[in-house]
Amino acid sequence: MDREILVEKLQGIVGKNGVFTRPADLLVYEYDGSVDGAVETATPSAVALPTTAEQIADIVILAREAGLPVVARGAGTGLSGGAVPQQGGIIISLTRMNRVLEIDREDRTALVEPGVINLELSEETLPHGFFFAPDPSSQKACTIGGNVAENSGGPHCLKYGVTTNHVLGLEIVLPDGRIVWTGGRSAGVSGYDLTGAMVGSEGMLGIVTKALVRLTPSPESTLVLLAPFADIESASHATSRIIAAGIVPAALEMMDNLTIQAVEPAYHAGYPMDAGAVLLIEIDGSTDDVRGTGVEIAALCVESGATEVRSATERAERDLLWKGRKMALGAMGRLAPNYYLHDTVVPRSKLPATLRRVEEISRDFDLPIANVFHAGDGNLHPLMLFDRRVNGSTERVLEASKEIITYCVDVGGALSGEHGIGTEKRGYMTLVYTADDLAAMAGLKNSFDPTGMFNPEKLFPKGYMCGEVRALRMQAMAQKLGIHAL
Amino acid sequence: MDREILVEKLQGIVGKNGVFTRPADLLVYEYDGSVDGAVETATPSAVALPTTAEQIADIVILAREAGLPVVARGAGTGLSGGAVPQQGGIIISLTRMNRVLEIDREDRTALVEPGVINLELSEETLPHGFFFAPDPSSQKACTIGGNVAENSGGPHCLKYGVTTNHVLGLEIVLPDGRIVWTGGRSAGVSGYDLTGAMVGSEGMLGIVTKALVRLTPSPESTLVLLAPFADIESASHATSRIIAAGIVPAALEMMDNLTIQAVEPAYHAGYPMDAGAVLLIEIDGSTDDVRGTGVEIAALCVESGATEVRSATERAERDLLWKGRKMALGAMGRLAPNYYLHDTVVPRSKLPATLRRVEEISRDFDLPIANVFHAGDGNLHPLMLFDRRVNGSTERVLEASKEIITYCVDVGGALSGEHGIGTEKRGYMTLVYTADDLAAMAGLKNSFDPTGMFNPEKLFPKGYMCGEVRALRMQAMAQKLGIHAL
Repeated sequence: MDREILVEKLQGIVGKNGVFTRPADLLVYEYDGSVDGAVETATPSAVALPTTAEQIADIVILAREAGLPVVARGAGTGLSGGAVPQQGGIIISLTRMNRVLEIDREDRTALVEPGVINLELSEETLPHGFFFAPDPSSQKACTIGGNVAENSGGPHCLKYGVTTNHVLGLEIVLPDGRIVWTGGRSAGVSGYDLTGAMVGSEGMLGIVTKALVRLTPSPESTLVLLAPFADIESASHATSRIIAAGIVPAALEMMDNLTIQAVEPAYHAGYPMDAGAVLLIEIDGSTDDVRGTGVEIAALCVESGATEVRSATERAERDLLWKGRKMALGAMGRLAPNYYLHDTVVPRSKLPATLRRVEEISRDFDLPIANVFHAGDGNLHPLMLFDRRVNGSTERVLEASKEIITYCVDVGGALSGEHGIGTEKRGYMTLVYTADDLAAMAGLKNSFDPTGMFNPEKLFPKGYMCGEVRALRMQAMAQKLGIHAL
Repeated sequence: MDREILVEKLQGIVGKNGVFTRPADLLVYEYDGSVDGAVETATPSAVALPTTAEQIADIVILAREAGLPVVARGAGTGLSGGAVPQQGGIIISLTRMNRVLEIDREDRTALVEPGVINLELSEETLPHGFFFAPDPSSQKACTIGGNVAENSGGPHCLKYGVTTNHVLGLEIVLPDGRIVWTGGRSAGVSGYDLTGAMVGSEGMLGIVTKALVRLTPSPESTLVLLAPFADIESASHATSRIIAAGIVPAALEMMDNLTIQAVEPAYHAGYPMDAGAVLLIEIDGSTDDVRGTGVEIAALCVESGATEVRSATERAERDLLWKGRKMALGAMGRLAPNYYLHDTVVPRSKLPATLRRVEEISRDFDLPIANVFHAGDGNLHPLMLFDRRVNGSTERVLEASKEIITYCVDVGGALSGEHGIGTEKRGYMTLVYTADDLAAMAGLKNSFDPTGMFNPEKLFPKGYMCGEVRALRMQAMAQKLGIHAL
């Protein structure tokens, strides 16, 4: 289809001011929050900004006629390249679908459009006594639709679970233009859990146009503890002891010395500059319970070698302690011009050994690595600091990443805790999955999107989806049945 | 394939004592916990009792050669006919795969075979300080594999969530005989959430051969409150107030007068015989917190009209209060020879109106209906009492069921909270889902099981899966695109 005709038709669907086509406008949509140079990208043909599910269905059908891929996009804060248009095509930006349609206090649910900003949903529901629990560090900017696509987490997911635990139902536009509803308005589900299959599918199976999400009651009381340790080892040990004691803190975050060096001078959160690591622990619940658990955790920290334990209950004090953690990425600019943030998970019991290995890799590759992460659920976030302008530095970072990822998988971990696979980690999927495992996933993709039109070149290893899937399945089957080609 | 050859080959896979073929043995496998006469069934060709995933893969490949359906079965306690062989074929009984393979204290997980009995897993992990949270009333008999297939719930799912919230990864035999692993050993997931798609898929997509499940820390303290009310209305009101206060009890169960009439004389749990309804409320957590929350709940109950509030903290007392609830089904025999238990969900806010409607239906159909249910999450369990030997009584029960289900769906509810759709409710799926919604589900089924070999005649409305799916999809697509047949 001629580009001019395409644009005209898009304008017919979403109106003139709902389509971006100028090169300067399109440039922005080639990127997301992932590291430039680590992810392939391409210029989209056009960006459409629909306001209804019906408009999205019409855009999808138009894209199909034009033979163009479709990439859905929220705020573009993703770190794995999930919203990057690797083969161009039409970008569907969901930022104009940003209404909270309904808050149901008694049923503790909210019906929202995909472009609603994560933090704004919590702000809107707080007066009703509720909040939306998943809280990615980008929560001031990222959207619920993006959270659903990546199954996003955040510090408080230790206690409250990730996005999939908070989505009850979804309205979705499928690759054939149909609009379907998955799940229910109440606790029960009828039939296959399509909502579960959709959450975390990275925009490859459908485009979310409405989400019915669970709201969580605001706790009566919240306590934040800061415990500095001489080294990472003893902070890890304290983490293990807290969890093994059966305590479930709302959040349990660790920052190492390098992170403190970046953060403390910037925000004066009160982290001791000479600490090898600090733990930031939040507990919430009833006032009595919080007080009791706080004392228990403090004792475990001191027994594990904490040099002191500071506590904050007032909002302003708590926010200050958290500020250093939440703004850690922003502060890294003080240490190096660029950073590459990884997201891998290891079984909690493997944390100390994994952190030692990360330190070795840092030495081997002569690459400073800051660690600021969700210790409570074993979700590492090694931050590699570098300068892109130095020749070969990006390549070195990617090499070091490979070492880290391989190690984490070897000790029984996962490729991603909350950032998704996207295009960043597709090459690593075979580390975790066999050909048969991947074929099962590809079968799911094929059932929703047989032509591979939604968000191509994501999640599956390169070359994997180009018609090879059926061949692979047949081959596996033939092997299993003992059928051999003559 | 000749039946004798089939049996011989099955014996070759699982050994002579791993195959049942005598009519008396097969008869048992025609039924599950669902009401006889409400569910169609057929005699299976054979029952195989494998002990490894590889044996299951071989049985599946054999069944494919023989053109026979395969139905996986746990303890057969299901209430929606999910394990009933509607078209005969090979039953794969998983009861011999009943080992707890691994308990990981630090990572709070257990790796189990599908035939492990729900309660036994908790009993085995309790000494380590953990339990497996989903607790169907049949937990003394039902298996983890069955829980996964039906996404089972139970009283404590109000606080802890249903089975899907406690499954981290699954080993599965697919309909083509491949053995795949979904999910991870740690908190993170890489790629599509096939685990989520598999949980609740009622044995139609794959057969679970291993499950990695999450263990929950045992609470420090547990308190059970019993609050009798003059009528269901005020008990419902108390429920709403407790939930709206932001309290999340571990369980919040309601029993009406008819249930009390059956239960109290049988178990002497101490429910007042003249109460219109009782609430049974469990709170767990730290000792201080439990005490405080207990007082708060008691106050809300009294304000809503509770005639008294009794509390129990000691295990024996708590168990006695619970016994009446957990054994309620068994006690119904005191009131009538047969019962039909329904499982529907309504938004919590619609509970009082729904219970009034159930009362009306009870009058209209001259059918005693006892209500014993998970009030906290709006999950109704109307129990219709009847005598099968009376002509037309089963039909009357099914008519009344239809009225109840239709009403629940009309007020925004779901067909099932925890019992699944199976064959029992497949006819109602179109009440909740559009043709497009169902086609999306059918697409999922087709991607895993294109020949419809695993557990046929379940979940989808009758006739739906007989090759019509592709036709329906094409038709929906053609309509959407404005393509009309000439």
